[in-house]
Amino acid sequence: ASHNLLLLPGDGIGPEIMEEVKKVISWFNANGGTDFTTEEGLVGGSAYDAHGQSISEEDMAKAMSADAVIFGAVGGPKWDDVPYDVRPEAGLLRLRKDMELFANLRPAICYPALADASSLKKDVIEGLDILIVRELTGGVYFGEPKEITDLGNGQKRGVDTQVYDTYEIERISKVAFELARTRNNKVCSMEKRNVMKSGVLWNEVVTQTHKNGFEDVTLEHMLADAGGMQLVRWPKQFDVIVTDNLFGDMLSDVAAMLTGSLGMLPSASLGAPDAKTGKRKALYEPVHGSAPDIAGTGAANPIAMIASFGMALRYSFEMVEAADLLDKAIANTLDKGLRTKDIAAGGETTVNTTEMGEAIIAELDAL
Amino acid sequence: ASHNLLLLPGDGIGPEIMEEVKKVISWFNANGGTDFTTEEGLVGGSAYDAHGQSISEEDMAKAMSADAVIFGAVGGPKWDDVPYDVRPEAGLLRLRKDMELFANLRPAICYPALADASSLKKDVIEGLDILIVRELTGGVYFGEPKEITDLGNGQKRGVDTQVYDTYEIERISKVAFELARTRNNKVCSMEKRNVMKSGVLWNEVVTQTHKNGFEDVTLEHMLADAGGMQLVRWPKQFDVIVTDNLFGDMLSDVAAMLTGSLGMLPSASLGAPDAKTGKRKALYEPVHGSAPDIAGTGAANPIAMIASFGMALRYSFEMVEAADLLDKAIANTLDKGLRTKDIAAGGETTVNTTEMGEAIIAELDAL
Ligand SMILES: CC(C)[C@H](C(=O)O)[C@@H](O)C(=O)O
Ligand SMILES: CC(C)[C@H](C(=O)O)[C@@H](O)C(=O)O
Repeated sequence: ASHNLLLLPGDGIGPEIMEEVKKVISWFNANGGTDFTTEEGLVGGSAYDAHGQSISEEDMAKAMSADAVIFGAVGGPKWDDVPYDVRPEAGLLRLRKDMELFANLRPAICYPALADASSLKKDVIEGLDILIVRELTGGVYFGEPKEITDLGNGQKRGVDTQVYDTYEIERISKVAFELARTRNNKVCSMEKRNVMKSGVLWNEVVTQTHKNGFEDVTLEHMLADAGGMQLVRWPKQFDVIVTDNLFGDMLSDVAAMLTGSLGMLPSASLGAPDAKTGKRKALYEPVHGSAPDIAGTGAANPIAMIASFGMALRYSFEMVEAADLLDKAIANTLDKGLRTKDIAAGGETTVNTTEMGEAIIAELDAL
Repeated sequence: ASHNLLLLPGDGIGPEIMEEVKKVISWFNANGGTDFTTEEGLVGGSAYDAHGQSISEEDMAKAMSADAVIFGAVGGPKWDDVPYDVRPEAGLLRLRKDMELFANLRPAICYPALADASSLKKDVIEGLDILIVRELTGGVYFGEPKEITDLGNGQKRGVDTQVYDTYEIERISKVAFELARTRNNKVCSMEKRNVMKSGVLWNEVVTQTHKNGFEDVTLEHMLADAGGMQLVRWPKQFDVIVTDNLFGDMLSDVAAMLTGSLGMLPSASLGAPDAKTGKRKALYEPVHGSAPDIAGTGAANPIAMIASFGMALRYSFEMVEAADLLDKAIANTLDKGLRTKDIAAGGETTVNTTEMGEAIIAELDAL
């Protein structure tokens, strides 16, 4: 069957790392029995530069009908002063919201070959494999009112609203419980119920959902600030962490940095299965950002982007063997000592973006 | 001059560590030429157990008139199911709000003797000395609406509101700039202006305040999620971090855990100087919580609590020499190899709460 991918490279290093993904897609079409067709669009600052919007209606329509969206990264100082509604991030947020991608899966894995690249002690992070399940279409990201008002007397007021409804918390906790069953069967839910009413509701609904058919999974609750601490102290205590949009943003970034492998970490953003076809809308993107400071220098690490396509193989197309093959090709490349600059600890061969992409293709050939 | 302290030990290990502070206060009265008088009150779960409120009106009145409040810690599973308005944390939040303690100073310091206790590599945290200045009376902690409403159909909605006015951001950034001048003259402001309107305003006001008389201080801006990452990657890049109530809660906990010295870290919460007397209302508390799991076992580390009294000497009473003396006594005790369980790495003498308190008194005697 033919599958349609929409590629949205975005800004900064986005286009450079997307080039390497294209090679991987071609490889699978030529050697892996897949039939991916690709289209390309603009998002973020590059879309704004082209037509004054952070994503065009045409590209939005393509995203809505694609079998999966492969997304690079957006933003950069160039667009610091563009109006709020058309800032680069607005394109990404609109994709998440309109495609209803409520479940953001962010694995934080420590690649054995990279255990030394972390700022944490080796025994603390070696073998680390946790999955953060972040709610992605609710909370303070989208709640209204969200505004700055002029109060007079030189005073302004900035307001954002954190809102969660029962069904939003229920569906994300189900995803977390289901994923935990395929892993170590443990979920830790994080909120600030001691300060936030949305946290009280979050805690209540997760607890209730657990009782309704997921009691085989171990459930723990932790305050989000304590959770941040525990991630730094002993991250291996966690299996799956489920949390809201803003806490998920903070905690998944901390978790990613723990591994020392930020340039390595992919993510998947999934919608609900369609009632008729069972298919989920999906967007795949690296956890890292657009890194404008290194754009164009060849220093970008394409692995997180390539691994994001790997997550698409796994979650959108159920091509588990192909996904495993790609993961293995990445691991082999690292085992051979190839490193982009961000993960070089000394003593290995430093390569640029293209060389890393081609080395992974060579490993695919060899496997 | 006589100074009046209100001691609020609170719950869990709070009362145990407060006992050690009392010894230190007595020592200074006997040997340091101070004249502290103390009163004691109830807060948190213990206040709820006594009279159904997380702090009584009588104790609130005492806090408002005290020269400084010395606060232990609140909360514990025993009070998980008490009504929201009288939960243990409500007592602390009311103190912060009614005393208008808008500036929360949280130093994250790595004690040389403890560099090995961190989960981070020694070179990453050795010599670390950063100060987080957290806004403490605004943001999502206090904004309205803050409620859970029943939508029918089994659906509820939880809402919290993040609100910041210009003057709130201005006064906290002034505190940050002023403190930076006494340190390494660098401030990093953290928000999520790419997602939150309050973050846009935060960024704008900090930038403006910097221009109005603080341009000698280096100012940097960072997105709060990237800030969390950078804290883990290379914390020594920071001097003073200024951020809002919720991000400050998360980031200061991560920063505290980096040092491996959570049981060691004090904090100060300060109000504005009184227009007539110049005196600030103030509350001093350890960064760590009430640790109900070890309450009553003698394992609690009293150092963060004692160092919080040290911050009171420094910030409320301008007794800089006394504060330095106390810090030195703590450092000497650690240098001699005395450790409570939380900071024991093996090879040192493990002591209990009382023994640690008494060892610090002995060092004060010896200095
Ligand atoms: C780019 C930004 C809007 C986004 C977010 O805050 O969600 C990013 O930080 C992320 O985590 O995907
Ligand atoms: C106890 C709780 C309300 C408090 C907070 O969230 O501010 C605590 O975590 C802190 O950081 O002082």
